[in-house]
Amino acid sequence: MNKSKRKLILYISCSLDGYIAKPNDDLSFLSIVEHEGQDYGYADFVQSVDTVIIGRKTYDWVVGQGYEFPHSDKESYVITRQARPNKGSINFYKGDLKSLVTELKNKEGKNIFCDGGSEILNQLLTDKLFDELILSIVPIIVGNGTKLFKEGIPEQELKLKSVNHFEKGLVQLHYELKKGE
Amino acid sequence: MNKSKRKLILYISCSLDGYIAKPNDDLSFLSIVEHEGQDYGYADFVQSVDTVIIGRKTYDWVVGQGYEFPHSDKESYVITRQARPNKGSINFYKGDLKSLVTELKNKEGKNIFCDGGSEILNQLLTDKLFDELILSIVPIIVGNGTKLFKEGIPEQELKLKSVNHFEKGLVQLHYELKKGE
Repeated sequence: MNKSKRKLILYISCSLDGYIAKPNDDLSFLSIVEHEGQDYGYADFVQSVDTVIIGRKTYDWVVGQGYEFPHSDKESYVITRQARPNKGSINFYKGDLKSLVTELKNKEGKNIFCDGGSEILNQLLTDKLFDELILSIVPIIVGNGTKLFKEGIPEQELKLKSVNHFEKGLVQLHYELKKGE
Repeated sequence: MNKSKRKLILYISCSLDGYIAKPNDDLSFLSIVEHEGQDYGYADFVQSVDTVIIGRKTYDWVVGQGYEFPHSDKESYVITRQARPNKGSINFYKGDLKSLVTELKNKEGKNIFCDGGSEILNQLLTDKLFDELILSIVPIIVGNGTKLFKEGIPEQELKLKSVNHFEKGLVQLHYELKKGE
């Protein structure tokens, strides 16, 4: 049994100019790729993970919009600076992010999904903890908002695993992060 | 004859995190996609244009590296704030960029290639003067340098024309800019 096979994966959408949201967490540009019956592989991807890491701001935003937290069926870690009581499968985690990821990767299980937001994913990129990135590029330039990649991430080579494109112009890029550099 | 068919096209490479160069105009990361016999369509593309627009800084950088200006066989416009005497087919242009592009598009000819740099291409994006973007995404995160897309470009929807990917992991995205928005 190869325990190291459990992967931390970023699955996220952005505009061609690299924004995951317009100012004020406005995600309305994602609607240009809405297409009935087409989920761009999301359901299959979600089936392949059993653990979710998400930033506290993103968690609060989702819940604040009146949505139910979409990963209640999985072991979830909300990364926060201020402790909160856990809620069912949702763990509020204020410890060291790297330790958490290392611990999770050493356990057995399916893959681990980082569902944003910007702060957490940039921390994970900086610490070189991702194994794979699945990026869906929406065919639009938005000009402003929340950047997917912040400045200052250390250089990392990628290995292209696959490219898919879809009728509405969405391009999905799937990369592995090269290790041991 | 449809004169409006002459297109202004950006053809450029960038890292996955959207940098066209690392600090100090360092382009060394492009070497990871060097592959003998593979020019990623560049020769064909260059055949399809007869006019080049390039920023003064980029022009000076190319010439300063000891390279010959690669577009001497084409009508070239170096966009500059300070006039210089023209040099063969190379015109130093300090007038209004939008007027130049409009004038060129109204003449007959092959397509027009914007060969950078960042300042000129962002001005052309801001003025919505591009007809097509051909973006080659190099499989690397570099973290710092010269951004392809600056903040503040007005929102523009794109139409995906094609996607190609290559053995070394380069992905080439070809978009049309949607007009009349």
